Amino acid sequence: MAKPLIFVTNDDGISAPGIRALIAVMNELGNVVVVAPDQVHSGKGHAVTIHQPLHLDRIKTNGPQKEFKTNGMPVDAVKLGLAHAVERQPDLLVSGLNHGVNHSVNVLYSGTMGAALEGAIEGIPSIGFSLDNYDWEADLEPAKHYMKKIAKQVLENGMPKGIALNVNIPYRPLKDIKGIKVARQAMDKWQESYDKRTSPFGRDYYWLNGNFTFEDKGEDTDVFALKNGFVSIVPIQYDLTAHHLINQLKNLET
Amino acid sequence: MAKPLIFVTNDDGISAPGIRALIAVMNELGNVVVVAPDQVHSGKGHAVTIHQPLHLDRIKTNGPQKEFKTNGMPVDAVKLGLAHAVERQPDLLVSGLNHGVNHSVNVLYSGTMGAALEGAIEGIPSIGFSLDNYDWEADLEPAKHYMKKIAKQVLENGMPKGIALNVNIPYRPLKDIKGIKVARQAMDKWQESYDKRTSPFGRDYYWLNGNFTFEDKGEDTDVFALKNGFVSIVPIQYDLTAHHLINQLKNLET
Repeated sequence: MAKPLIFVTNDDGISAPGIRALIAVMNELGNVVVVAPDQVHSGKGHAVTIHQPLHLDRIKTNGPQKEFKTNGMPVDAVKLGLAHAVERQPDLLVSGLNHGVNHSVNVLYSGTMGAALEGAIEGIPSIGFSLDNYDWEADLEPAKHYMKKIAKQVLENGMPKGIALNVNIPYRPLKDIKGIKVARQAMDKWQESYDKRTSPFGRDYYWLNGNFTFEDKGEDTDVFALKNGFVSIVPIQYDLTAHHLINQLKNLET
Repeated sequence: MAKPLIFVTNDDGISAPGIRALIAVMNELGNVVVVAPDQVHSGKGHAVTIHQPLHLDRIKTNGPQKEFKTNGMPVDAVKLGLAHAVERQPDLLVSGLNHGVNHSVNVLYSGTMGAALEGAIEGIPSIGFSLDNYDWEADLEPAKHYMKKIAKQVLENGMPKGIALNVNIPYRPLKDIKGIKVARQAMDKWQESYDKRTSPFGRDYYWLNGNFTFEDKGEDTDVFALKNGFVSIVPIQYDLTAHHLINQLKNLET
């Protein structure tokens, strides 16, 4: 049987340890093509480059994978990569491993998940992986174990069309990770806060410095699963319609 | 009764005719605070600035509204504006009027809608307005009529919590707009395509140049409403969970 074709991207940039770990794991499962940003694009969500030209540069690698870097953002990497870096539709798209957690509302801000959702829009089984640790020196071995396990299962069993998986991995030794939970997105959010400073020239500027608030007390959420030592998987969709409200809002019609 | 407080933003930048039209309309309905990007940020979706400092500069206006410009993107304008430009939680957040349509999957790429969704996350009744015309010289009077009508109704009747309205307005004379339809997001998407060119220095570069494909034949979609001359309203939510698939995916659990 032909090896599956696996498309790898991320938002921390092509040299981040997280994507290097993901590439290593995917090389064990199939033929890998990497298209990733040439710099860090955390927080870029589903942003796409419209008004600037993009580059797509093949780079040398030490492994069997093909690699390209782009000056685009994560969703650009997917769009441009699918158009010009692969010969056919990949069997799997994986994004990550993100250095930092992407549970709850963070799925919207996350470039890692923007890329995964773009894969889903293109009809490719797509998974975004994030680790509950921001340190580029973190031990990625436990995450590698779960990335391989989940990707293998998706390659074998497929996934419903138009869906991406938002996978968050707790930062603990492998033996202390309790397993996998399929969950819903917690309805938690950031409490906005900016650190206001004044430049040497007297001009005010602001650094984003929010606090995350945990208000959703559900035990079926990604946040709950992570807190209890489980890998969380949330199936996400790109239909944002609040279908249950369409009838209720018919009073807006004229 | 105290006038409502209305927060206005957009993604085409603070000098775009679309936001000037929106401000004019909102001045008739309440006290207006404008916080908008100082440049065009089309396609920035839900992107947020994490690693750079932001500015928030009060600017002079000819009307009763307060105005601030920021070097941030649309979601930044909302976050920073709510933290530092208003005294209290606004009663309404409006984003737009976007120069260009944001139906179907475009809701994900749209900075206009990213800002509106951010308002919804903050619990503010939020509306994004987009016009089915990209020309900054377009006649905005028919759109003004509908923006006022819809915003007024939301101010009077409120909206379900955590929801934003994605409003798209066809480009026709007022008398030819047939009314308003509450709709679902059409499951249409872009067919990726890049225009490949070579620079004077021999380096390849790519311009995004996709074609939109209309495959969703439903008559309850935003695309269908627009094609038939109606203003479309899609209620959108920031919970991306595909709840109907959670049970089906339990086989991923261990």
